[in-house]
Amino acid sequence: MTNLAELEVGFDIPAAIGMDESEIQTPCLILDLDALERNIVKMGDYARAHGMRHRVHGKMHKSVDVAMLQERLGGAVGVCCQKVSEAEVFARGGIKDVLVSNQVRDPLKIDRLARIPLTGARTIVCVDDIDNVADLSAAAQKNGTQLECFVEIDCGAGRCGVTTTQDVVRIAQAIDAAPGLKFAGIQAYQGAMQHMDAYADRKAKLDIAIAQVRDAVEGLKAASLDPELVSGGGTGSYYFESNSGVYNELQCGSYAFMDADYGRILDENGQRIDQGEWENALFILTSVMSHAKADKAICDAGLKAQSVDSGLPVVFGRDDVKYIKCSDEHGVIEDPHGVLKINDRLRLVPGHCDPTCNVHDWYVGVRGGKVEALWPVSARGKAY
Amino acid sequence: MTNLAELEVGFDIPAAIGMDESEIQTPCLILDLDALERNIVKMGDYARAHGMRHRVHGKMHKSVDVAMLQERLGGAVGVCCQKVSEAEVFARGGIKDVLVSNQVRDPLKIDRLARIPLTGARTIVCVDDIDNVADLSAAAQKNGTQLECFVEIDCGAGRCGVTTTQDVVRIAQAIDAAPGLKFAGIQAYQGAMQHMDAYADRKAKLDIAIAQVRDAVEGLKAASLDPELVSGGGTGSYYFESNSGVYNELQCGSYAFMDADYGRILDENGQRIDQGEWENALFILTSVMSHAKADKAICDAGLKAQSVDSGLPVVFGRDDVKYIKCSDEHGVIEDPHGVLKINDRLRLVPGHCDPTCNVHDWYVGVRGGKVEALWPVSARGKAY
Repeated sequence: MTNLAELEVGFDIPAAIGMDESEIQTPCLILDLDALERNIVKMGDYARAHGMRHRVHGKMHKSVDVAMLQERLGGAVGVCCQKVSEAEVFARGGIKDVLVSNQVRDPLKIDRLARIPLTGARTIVCVDDIDNVADLSAAAQKNGTQLECFVEIDCGAGRCGVTTTQDVVRIAQAIDAAPGLKFAGIQAYQGAMQHMDAYADRKAKLDIAIAQVRDAVEGLKAASLDPELVSGGGTGSYYFESNSGVYNELQCGSYAFMDADYGRILDENGQRIDQGEWENALFILTSVMSHAKADKAICDAGLKAQSVDSGLPVVFGRDDVKYIKCSDEHGVIEDPHGVLKINDRLRLVPGHCDPTCNVHDWYVGVRGGKVEALWPVSARGKAY
Repeated sequence: MTNLAELEVGFDIPAAIGMDESEIQTPCLILDLDALERNIVKMGDYARAHGMRHRVHGKMHKSVDVAMLQERLGGAVGVCCQKVSEAEVFARGGIKDVLVSNQVRDPLKIDRLARIPLTGARTIVCVDDIDNVADLSAAAQKNGTQLECFVEIDCGAGRCGVTTTQDVVRIAQAIDAAPGLKFAGIQAYQGAMQHMDAYADRKAKLDIAIAQVRDAVEGLKAASLDPELVSGGGTGSYYFESNSGVYNELQCGSYAFMDADYGRILDENGQRIDQGEWENALFILTSVMSHAKADKAICDAGLKAQSVDSGLPVVFGRDDVKYIKCSDEHGVIEDPHGVLKINDRLRLVPGHCDPTCNVHDWYVGVRGGKVEALWPVSARGKAY
């Protein structure tokens, strides 16, 4: 365990617990703990009311502390994540049900994966190629463990996954027959539609995905391989999967933190999802460090403090100033009335939470203007 | 010092020294050491031949090891970087001349900055606001140190910096009069033109910048404040500053590693700068981990392995396959002829080196197919 007292504020860590929010060293990630807890409770209540397991997506926050909070307050059953090294962080941190919602093909990675059950965690991995089954089986046997497997269906994301029920059944049968492996269900996450603005457009994509998954489930049942878990669903779709009668496990991630790109999508009533459904809980805290031009303030959060793949960050709670340009180390803030002063703090809602969290080492949890928590981004950089 | 032997390959580190390149855990950053050394020697020779000091931009690589190599092989005089915490890493690592080519305004950051000279490093910081002078002076006096100051001129980048000679002279006089501070020169980096493709377009921007800086130098001389250093210049412009008769210090960074966005700009003869002037030395090593669709391979380098702010990465040395889409954890590789196999390795030239290096913990130095060096990205995450 890291001893926080040995770390230097402003070098190793952005803040110390108990500090006033105004003293936090910027740029850094802050979490509004009240908003975060409300988001977690709300999704937990939704999942419970709809009879869904909720396996939260740990790739979004990469934090054991946040995952534990999601278990405690939101009834989460465990996590999914995308890489073996991430899964190791969560399992070593005490998460007892870990899905690598991705393919694992490198020999060393397969061997590491097969040792995760030794931590006591249920360990599931996705498969989209029958050639992978023998390697996973051999590694589980070598390590004396059991790996559970989901067959991954590409239901529209256009990345990994097979597309026909025939392939799903064929791979499931191979898994079922392989020593050391257990067929546990289906991975079917439609990642490509989550950010479509209109509810009806998202529904149309999910209707197609659900039909595809239903066909696969029927095919599996016909082959006497009833899937225990049918897993998928994100912040822009979880209500479709929950009401499908086919899925029984959700994998939402961004709902807990929110971001500017997700926030723009619309709910069934045409309202932005960050204006009622979810609250912004994650911010990049930034400071004004130059104002040599009257109408432009320069802040200290640039490309090293965020990912702008899904657009620029938005200044939270203000319409008098606007983040208009991002370079390596600077953000340019349009300040037409010159209201900003040197060392003024702004909360930026990042364009895209997942890759933004991945550039930071710490979450600073704030409540009532004080630093209440300092949580490591435990799996930051765990890309292997 | 980190004991490499205690770190787990595939969890803490992507490779071990002596390993075959085919065993490196992906995604990770690799450096072609031969190409890196040739780039460093070439820029060092250029600077020496033109009588320029070369203060390499450490914000690009954030690595003490690379900075040391640039001193040893390229005659670099030290580094510049953008944040106090970065400067602390370089100074603690043994770099003896460190410029924070940025404004420092937060009280704790100013105090930390003023303690850097205690490491034995010459410490320079930029100023663009006369109100900053008293704070820097107080911190230097409190810590019994000397901070040197550049006045920053905005010569076209549109970020920090003053724009008139009058302001330059006024701030320089305040620095000169302040106890604990020393006026050391001018910071004038034209960041906005570095990536313009056409040589003539870049030259036109630099002509304006040079005229502006020359005017400031004359104004300072008239005020008996002859600047010791006039510092600026990047990979897309260093020949203009070197031949200006005004600048005497370069700040190039990307030349050492190269990236896809810089590589596209053209030299005086209309040739891409990555086709002769500089070599690609930095790559994201990635593996194919799914090929369930015949014409698409999925690799393991997505947004967590790079920044795509300046465009997608380019597959190095191949025109039969193409990186066409980037999501959080996946890259989609167009493979029309199905030539890629599972676990095939590709070298990706990142779109933008600086923020890409900032998401990784290690550089894996390779030569002749073997891992020769494992260097930490020493200042990764040092954004404060």
